[in-house]
Amino acid sequence: MGKKANERRGDIKREDIGMKHKKKNFSKWFSEVIAKTELADLRYNVKGFLVHMPWSVLTMKNMYRFYEDELERKGHQPAWFPALIPESNFKMEAEHVEGFAPELFWITHSGDEKLTEKMALRPTSETAMYVMYAKWIRSWRDLPLKIYQSCQVWRCDTKATRPFIRGREFHWIEGHDVFATLKEADAQVREDMDTTEKVMHQIYGIPFLQLQRPEWDKFPGAVHTYVADTLMPDGKILQQPSTHLLGQNFSKGFRIKFKDKDENEKYPWQTCYGPAIWRMLASIIAMHGDDKGLRFPYEIAPVQVIIIPITGLGEEKRVAKKCKEITEKLDKGKIRTRIDLSENTPGWKFNQWEMKGVPIRIEIGPKELKTRSVTLVRRDTGRKQKVLEKNLLKTVERAGKDMSKKLRTEAEGFLRKNIREARDLKELGEQLKKGGFVKIDFCSIDIEGLPCAEKIKDRFHAQIRGKRFDQAEKPKGKCIICGKPATCVVYVGREY
Amino acid sequence: MGKKANERRGDIKREDIGMKHKKKNFSKWFSEVIAKTELADLRYNVKGFLVHMPWSVLTMKNMYRFYEDELERKGHQPAWFPALIPESNFKMEAEHVEGFAPELFWITHSGDEKLTEKMALRPTSETAMYVMYAKWIRSWRDLPLKIYQSCQVWRCDTKATRPFIRGREFHWIEGHDVFATLKEADAQVREDMDTTEKVMHQIYGIPFLQLQRPEWDKFPGAVHTYVADTLMPDGKILQQPSTHLLGQNFSKGFRIKFKDKDENEKYPWQTCYGPAIWRMLASIIAMHGDDKGLRFPYEIAPVQVIIIPITGLGEEKRVAKKCKEITEKLDKGKIRTRIDLSENTPGWKFNQWEMKGVPIRIEIGPKELKTRSVTLVRRDTGRKQKVLEKNLLKTVERAGKDMSKKLRTEAEGFLRKNIREARDLKELGEQLKKGGFVKIDFCSIDIEGLPCAEKIKDRFHAQIRGKRFDQAEKPKGKCIICGKPATCVVYVGREY
Repeated sequence: MGKKANERRGDIKREDIGMKHKKKNFSKWFSEVIAKTELADLRYNVKGFLVHMPWSVLTMKNMYRFYEDELERKGHQPAWFPALIPESNFKMEAEHVEGFAPELFWITHSGDEKLTEKMALRPTSETAMYVMYAKWIRSWRDLPLKIYQSCQVWRCDTKATRPFIRGREFHWIEGHDVFATLKEADAQVREDMDTTEKVMHQIYGIPFLQLQRPEWDKFPGAVHTYVADTLMPDGKILQQPSTHLLGQNFSKGFRIKFKDKDENEKYPWQTCYGPAIWRMLASIIAMHGDDKGLRFPYEIAPVQVIIIPITGLGEEKRVAKKCKEITEKLDKGKIRTRIDLSENTPGWKFNQWEMKGVPIRIEIGPKELKTRSVTLVRRDTGRKQKVLEKNLLKTVERAGKDMSKKLRTEAEGFLRKNIREARDLKELGEQLKKGGFVKIDFCSIDIEGLPCAEKIKDRFHAQIRGKRFDQAEKPKGKCIICGKPATCVVYVGREY
Repeated sequence: MGKKANERRGDIKREDIGMKHKKKNFSKWFSEVIAKTELADLRYNVKGFLVHMPWSVLTMKNMYRFYEDELERKGHQPAWFPALIPESNFKMEAEHVEGFAPELFWITHSGDEKLTEKMALRPTSETAMYVMYAKWIRSWRDLPLKIYQSCQVWRCDTKATRPFIRGREFHWIEGHDVFATLKEADAQVREDMDTTEKVMHQIYGIPFLQLQRPEWDKFPGAVHTYVADTLMPDGKILQQPSTHLLGQNFSKGFRIKFKDKDENEKYPWQTCYGPAIWRMLASIIAMHGDDKGLRFPYEIAPVQVIIIPITGLGEEKRVAKKCKEITEKLDKGKIRTRIDLSENTPGWKFNQWEMKGVPIRIEIGPKELKTRSVTLVRRDTGRKQKVLEKNLLKTVERAGKDMSKKLRTEAEGFLRKNIREARDLKELGEQLKKGGFVKIDFCSIDIEGLPCAEKIKDRFHAQIRGKRFDQAEKPKGKCIICGKPATCVVYVGREY
């Protein structure tokens, strides 16, 4: 909505203000908060496609900026590849096409004419990018090649769609890197995990488990798949950025070759990485929100400070003037500030902007005018604080940072609390009821472990999420399913 | 390309360095500069689709930021609408569908299944957005609604494609505004022109003529179309951002209604605005480039300063260290800086980065080490200047701004020089041969002027571009085609 419209719109909807559902009714709360805070509108007339409204887009623009900066700092450069991919490109890597074929949207006509070859909307860009990589890479001097693109992808997922969690069109980043050696490719996978840590965890405040997925649950065409698994408030797992060691599968399929220092022609080693900004917003909404609505980390909040005039009789003009003066001051300090001059009551405004997740509220009234100060209220604690005007910038920034840290720490606590252990099947069933991850000793995440995984799936509707990637965990005894010697500790849980 | 790869790659292509074609052979020069500076690769296996390489994407990211900031400053808010539009949405405004139907890419299947209704890839987003506007707008309190989105669009244009000028997939911004009154909509059209002026002219350095298009050359569904027409170095016209007064055509078609203050239900007034970042880059490449290659305005250059070490015997390490120190210093000052530590000769590097359009080169060698200074060279003048380290930040910024101003002034001079007048048909033919715009007295840009426009088209392959929007120009006599009393002065030219 336009700023003005948004302020005015409020006037006629007072009765509607505030959240009806508590967060413990997570599913209803999640739908309500998305609708009421105007993050997205689900009424577009194509199933599974969201209209992203300003409140979410302003947030995702900030989220993109942090992610892109971190990727560029690590030597990636941005590119934009076509959204349309000819059918023949897909056929160049057998597992990949098999994995994605059921989900592809096909373009068959332009105007009234039938195309000579049908084209898919990209579900991911390997097959668009690697035909070009085959042209660009000739020599070891052309490596490493590290490219990312920020774009939309389309997947006609047959599962039920949920806003920001699973949809047929979503916004993400994909990084596609090429190296002369396996060793460098392996290092890249770890660098990608570090990027997830630096941005998703440290900035967005979403902690995660680093897991290597089992053989039967890899990205189509990958040698290994590593993921950042996060928890949702209802104890279900939401997969966040995954990074894949593609090995030489695609370079062979797409005939990407380079002449090495030793003058021999070789296939390079590839990795790809897929941080979905869109889905990370789901974690931010879900993990940081509370009964009153959204709570945005300060760094990515669309509006960081909302200024609300408290008008006393006859003082309206002076108060409004001061509010505008403070807004300008914060704007100049690069703090995203908005002022609510609508005709609603202060109480209505407090509720409205709390629901929308603005980290800091500043109240200015006749009392504040007299003391050259403002009243600052934090979204997380609700604590009120008098701040002298001259200290305002610093205090806002400190409060913002502190609030982000607090949200992150709370989310970390929730994750830690929801990692449990089970020593046998019965205990696994009991622990899974509590939600979260359950650690068990397991025979193998190689393909021979699949029968045991299927037993767990059939009995508990839960998946083997994989084994830790960031640390080696030694099993104590036998696989709790088949009784063979365990080779690894795996994490089990139910996913979105 | 990865930074490192890009540096190394140079080693094996020395013989290839520099531009072969002079800018006076504009068409060849334009193709060569796009390929050699790695702005785009035209070899993707779908006709009319570009692969945008890092050098152009880094530039367009900067261009987007300036444009989005200006739109937001003027009260627009960002949104993201679906890229897929059901056929039925198109049929809601008759002229619009007729105009775009031949260019639509149609999605007919997902996986193996035929869709119940085919969907088009958006060629522009009116028909995706206005179905939602009909749901969002209820009252005068919801107006004005000012929304923009940054996205790609797809048009299966049947004309010959040229990179950044005409293609089947391009990157743009579209603004879609709704007002309670015609007066506000009219004012918005002027505000859009001001945005074009502030960003395209003042920041990108591309001057333009503000023209109202004739009745027969409007956007499909618009009441009036206003454009920013720019010149290319070969004297042909390239249309840049257009803004359209849509009147109530779409609000009636899409049943967007609001209850006004007088309690009556009314159709609101709409405008739309389409700044194509992608095409504006074509003007930047073309207008600012010279025989040596690209010249980017400082504000949008992907790299603003390139640092090149000049190594004396035995001083390599000390020089490299100083180069890194200066890079960090500029980086901290928010100046986009890169250092070229490849094994190429300094001369090779000078040519390479001049070709790529980097505004400022800094040379550091043993001489500079001794005097705590650097040598600064401007891309536009080639003038060398010693700068003390302590003055470097300020000097770089001043030189950058000055260079942008110079590029803009040159482009303004070119446009001014290429506006000519003609008093009769013969003179029109002669003036058109020189390229640029030719002003003539004309009967009318309403539909009754079409026969005269067609005569000009048949005889000279030139179009009536329209009459001035920013100032009233009075005709002196009769239409130079039909001899009837002229009602306006129009601009004639040949377009891309």
